[in-house]
Amino acid sequence: MPVGELFNPRSIALVGATDKSGWSISTLTNLRTHGFRGPVHLVNPRGGVVHGEQAHRSLSDIPGQVDLAYVMVPTTAVLPVLREGAKLGIRHYVILTAGFGETGPGGAALEAEIVGFARENDLTVLGPNGNGFVNAAAGITPYGLPIPAPLLRGPVGVVLQSGALASSVLGFAQARNVGISLLTSMGNESLVTVTDVIDYLVDDPATKAIALFLESVRDPAVFSRAARRALLAGKPIVALKIGRSRLASRTAQAHTGALVGDDNVIDAAFRQLGVVRVRSLEDLVITAGLLAEVGPLPGPRIGVVTPSGGASEIIADRAEDEGLELPAFAPETVARLREIVPAFGTVQNPLDVTGYVLIDRTLLGRALEAVTADPGVDAVMLLSDLPRVAPPDPEPVYATFSASAKRVADAPMPVVVVSNTLTDVTEFGRDVQRKTGFPYVAGGIEHGVHAIGAAVRWGQAYRAAVEAAGARVPAGAVASAPAAETRTGVWAEHRAAALLSSAGIPVVPGELVYDEESAVAAAVGFGYPVVLKAAAEGLGHKSDIGGVRLGLSGARDVERAYREVVAAAAAAGLDRVGALVQPQRGGGVELLAGVVRDPSWGLTLAVGLGGIWVEALRDTALRVLPVDAAEVRRALDELRGTALLRGARGTEPADLDAVAEVVARVAALAESLGDDLESLEINPLLVRGSHVEALDALVTWRG
Amino acid sequence: MPVGELFNPRSIALVGATDKSGWSISTLTNLRTHGFRGPVHLVNPRGGVVHGEQAHRSLSDIPGQVDLAYVMVPTTAVLPVLREGAKLGIRHYVILTAGFGETGPGGAALEAEIVGFARENDLTVLGPNGNGFVNAAAGITPYGLPIPAPLLRGPVGVVLQSGALASSVLGFAQARNVGISLLTSMGNESLVTVTDVIDYLVDDPATKAIALFLESVRDPAVFSRAARRALLAGKPIVALKIGRSRLASRTAQAHTGALVGDDNVIDAAFRQLGVVRVRSLEDLVITAGLLAEVGPLPGPRIGVVTPSGGASEIIADRAEDEGLELPAFAPETVARLREIVPAFGTVQNPLDVTGYVLIDRTLLGRALEAVTADPGVDAVMLLSDLPRVAPPDPEPVYATFSASAKRVADAPMPVVVVSNTLTDVTEFGRDVQRKTGFPYVAGGIEHGVHAIGAAVRWGQAYRAAVEAAGARVPAGAVASAPAAETRTGVWAEHRAAALLSSAGIPVVPGELVYDEESAVAAAVGFGYPVVLKAAAEGLGHKSDIGGVRLGLSGARDVERAYREVVAAAAAAGLDRVGALVQPQRGGGVELLAGVVRDPSWGLTLAVGLGGIWVEALRDTALRVLPVDAAEVRRALDELRGTALLRGARGTEPADLDAVAEVVARVAALAESLGDDLESLEINPLLVRGSHVEALDALVTWRG
Repeated sequence: MPVGELFNPRSIALVGATDKSGWSISTLTNLRTHGFRGPVHLVNPRGGVVHGEQAHRSLSDIPGQVDLAYVMVPTTAVLPVLREGAKLGIRHYVILTAGFGETGPGGAALEAEIVGFARENDLTVLGPNGNGFVNAAAGITPYGLPIPAPLLRGPVGVVLQSGALASSVLGFAQARNVGISLLTSMGNESLVTVTDVIDYLVDDPATKAIALFLESVRDPAVFSRAARRALLAGKPIVALKIGRSRLASRTAQAHTGALVGDDNVIDAAFRQLGVVRVRSLEDLVITAGLLAEVGPLPGPRIGVVTPSGGASEIIADRAEDEGLELPAFAPETVARLREIVPAFGTVQNPLDVTGYVLIDRTLLGRALEAVTADPGVDAVMLLSDLPRVAPPDPEPVYATFSASAKRVADAPMPVVVVSNTLTDVTEFGRDVQRKTGFPYVAGGIEHGVHAIGAAVRWGQAYRAAVEAAGARVPAGAVASAPAAETRTGVWAEHRAAALLSSAGIPVVPGELVYDEESAVAAAVGFGYPVVLKAAAEGLGHKSDIGGVRLGLSGARDVERAYREVVAAAAAAGLDRVGALVQPQRGGGVELLAGVVRDPSWGLTLAVGLGGIWVEALRDTALRVLPVDAAEVRRALDELRGTALLRGARGTEPADLDAVAEVVARVAALAESLGDDLESLEINPLLVRGSHVEALDALVTWRG
Repeated sequence: MPVGELFNPRSIALVGATDKSGWSISTLTNLRTHGFRGPVHLVNPRGGVVHGEQAHRSLSDIPGQVDLAYVMVPTTAVLPVLREGAKLGIRHYVILTAGFGETGPGGAALEAEIVGFARENDLTVLGPNGNGFVNAAAGITPYGLPIPAPLLRGPVGVVLQSGALASSVLGFAQARNVGISLLTSMGNESLVTVTDVIDYLVDDPATKAIALFLESVRDPAVFSRAARRALLAGKPIVALKIGRSRLASRTAQAHTGALVGDDNVIDAAFRQLGVVRVRSLEDLVITAGLLAEVGPLPGPRIGVVTPSGGASEIIADRAEDEGLELPAFAPETVARLREIVPAFGTVQNPLDVTGYVLIDRTLLGRALEAVTADPGVDAVMLLSDLPRVAPPDPEPVYATFSASAKRVADAPMPVVVVSNTLTDVTEFGRDVQRKTGFPYVAGGIEHGVHAIGAAVRWGQAYRAAVEAAGARVPAGAVASAPAAETRTGVWAEHRAAALLSSAGIPVVPGELVYDEESAVAAAVGFGYPVVLKAAAEGLGHKSDIGGVRLGLSGARDVERAYREVVAAAAAAGLDRVGALVQPQRGGGVELLAGVVRDPSWGLTLAVGLGGIWVEALRDTALRVLPVDAAEVRRALDELRGTALLRGARGTEPADLDAVAEVVARVAALAESLGDDLESLEINPLLVRGSHVEALDALVTWRG
């Protein structure tokens, strides 16, 4: 739904304006004090004087065009207001009124009526149960809570699925001197959605970065499209998505189902979409502010310039946490710095130019100039606090910060300024930034280094997306898909194996047998030792019923094993029980590769250590499909168990590209099976050098 | 070294006072403006007027007693000042002057002279190369950098191994309205050490919590003693210890050596000592502030009261990160809350009392009263911002916060107040706290929930320490210690095994053989299958030289294996090579249990998953010795692989108490071996149900 006109009305009516309501007072005050130049009409059914002005009794009484009606009447009076407005040609609404879907079935019915009416009449509605918006860029602020003064205009667009947090975000952004382009409090999102606003912000020239507070991602497909658009447009999205602590309570036949907690899928999807996920309101604002002001950082190699040894060591620790590198300076940089840094200092990265800055105020700037010329560094972090209190004569302060500002502006690479601790940018600090052009200061080492890490990661995602947008999508492996009517329930190993084979996935050979003699014959054919597993339709985890025998090394062993597993399966109530005979494999590392359907995000791939380690270690990387082999390879690199794959003591190093190729085929097969598939899991997937082979598999259909 | 008199002088001389030095100006300004009532004498060899006052030419010219000399003369002039002062009976010194040990060997020699002279003459010296101290409690502030006004007095003692960060900490503490008792900038610690100051703060009635910034722990034994004293005195220590990113680069024969990075040992030691480790300056101040004001929290079950749904979900996420529980409210609490919370709200923990707080200002307080009466909750977190800007009439604000303050004070359990985001406590906010007694506000959900987690963990450590102080220490297992003269080099498996057995640690049986026939005889004695391993003095990791054969199931196998492993060991240059024959064990989980000597902290225990998983997964918990079985049990519970021990699919659950008992014996054995031991490692330690057995062992001696 396009929302450009909603956020840019030239005339506004406050419907339900009354002296008794704090919301009414705040909304009018906000419009009058933050720059709205058009007419604001007050509507109250009793007419009279409201907020010191003459009120109209109804929308119809207002002379002239109304672009936006801000509605704060009682719940049941909302629809009549919309009816009247629609008749008058008012197309845009903010509904502050609560009492709708958030209260239960009765309210939901009322909300559905409003949605239906709005759709029929092509009305744009923000809310209900939302406080409105703050279009700081245009000075249009129909917003129902006090806006802390001063309202700072700037490059960050904010979209919140929470009313109460908007004030916290506005206040904190102000304390960080981070300006806002547009802030919206979404309410129930019954018509205008978060993604509608993202789409608007991507096109909005005033917005350079987008900050989201999300309680849920309502429509992952639509969200993904909007996020990809933002990424390709070079507008970073930073998101605080809550609900990390909620454990998915799904039941799924495959292990993969239990591994894919909702929140882990969101983590994976956000990473794939280039959405920077943060865990605090502080990181939300500080990171969005940095991305808006500095943009993507070209790489992870950071030169650090500080006036403090203690601080540089804190920075070194935090940089490692964030995956940043602090490379040694190039010899020419070291030589230059030796001329600059006092003899008792140490020239290294991170650089402490020493407390001598108190005596020589040019020291930090000259060191900065030397470090920004270093060829081995992608960006520079400068530790510098803004002044808090104006001295009697502020001119020397302005001069110092002007000189620094010029050095940062002239630097041949991005310079990110970070303060020691997270304290407010005071009024004088803001004044210094405004007057001298001193750049954005990320608040404190803790959150500042996090923001730098995010800017590096986002830069990587951005460049990869731009590159991929120009690249051709390779044709995936296509399986000879099984007939739709057979796609029900659980497919036991032998059927799943055939499906995998048809898609070019290497599977351990096996023979399905229905008597002891055939079992022995199959074993002889494969050569001892062999494995024997119960086989029957609908039989999932065979080991749970005692249906697996390993390391069988002779005919007697095989015969006995056959009798036992068949008996076990029969005892479990299964019909037409036979056994699968396979050669026993050994050595190598066992992985799990599975695809499961996430209820929101769709088919999701999990790769990790397999066998008994799946549940014990939960060392799994996730990706929302589609993925290619390169993406799978990156997922493998994320595993803690990577050391094992690379060849820990006594094991053969795995060919990770070969593994990625096979897993990518598994993903492509899952996609080709379409909506019928619930899950497809290989566990274990044996990896020994470049030998990759599925030793067991399970397919679950939705039907 | 006692430092009570150092920090509480009644008269001070500033030696080297000059108008040209910012340090000199700051020190005098600080003493004059922050409450020092005694005489301050300026000393300058040229005499004349300094800082507008008549200066003395030397200490000898000062009439009357000087308790403390603050020395900022050139480096080579420091010792003469001390000589003169000592003659005059001046016993306490702060040396701001730099140019000593921090600059290299020449400076170190000068520093050694000073230390020698001070020791001989019983002088107390803080520094050199330190900015002095701020005794805010007593209003004595001989400190060389500007102190941001106002200096807030309060319960937090701060000790910093960094000069430059002191200003950041002072500024941030002020922004959080956290008062300081004493702050010291340690400099080179050549005489007065961090632990001296800790000892002082433990006895200082003005100090309720201690915040440390540490670059290194100079003497772990002394630090441990001071930390234990603080813990038993109920004074929490919070420490920001940097150097997390530095990887230990030690070479050690045993795996354990590589696992025990310096920083991991510090983590373990701090946890054992009840020292709360934080990673940011923000957490250092906020956590120390909370511990000082609220004290230990009685348990992890937190009731949460907020006016915001979005915020309560952020809190739920962060609480899980911190190991806090948000239990469901008791039925009677739910009933009470239903009367209080508007009908459209939801009664749950965390509680959102809804935006209706804007209309009914008593709502939050009444909800707080109900939740603090809940029997299933240990403490309550109240989300509340302090006001930032004074309204024209502040009286209603005072009334509201007074009422809240009373509710918190009257609550039958601790209430911790946390603000939404980390913004400064403004002057008006401080005024409101002072006038109404409104309690400490932890800055922002992100850092506030961390601080609550720390207060819970510290409370647990405190109670355990108090309990243990009253308990009797059980007698450890004592091995028949080997003769000292044999304790050199690497003891191969068979000798190590004998040592373990003598200490009551179950070891797989084995027979050392020197020919093929004896090998077969031993195998027959144990029963097939067997394991055969090369054995020779000085042979450490047998598998590295191809010296291990598993799963031997007949005489021919054993004979061939014997020939091969002996040849492999001989090829590796070893003498008197034989082989160790053992029965092959199977099933179960393989652990590693090792003790290694950390160069700072001494013998340190590592337990974790063993076998090939050691290096691949690095899933290891550490403890500095001594430990008892209960502590080992807690270490086992920390492992990611715990699920495996508890019995993942198809494996028998391990008797963790039995494992802990055996590992505690290993630790006791290591301790009984004294200073000669470098490392003692069992890998693997087989665990199958309650069967615990060392399958391989290695002892390395320091000689």
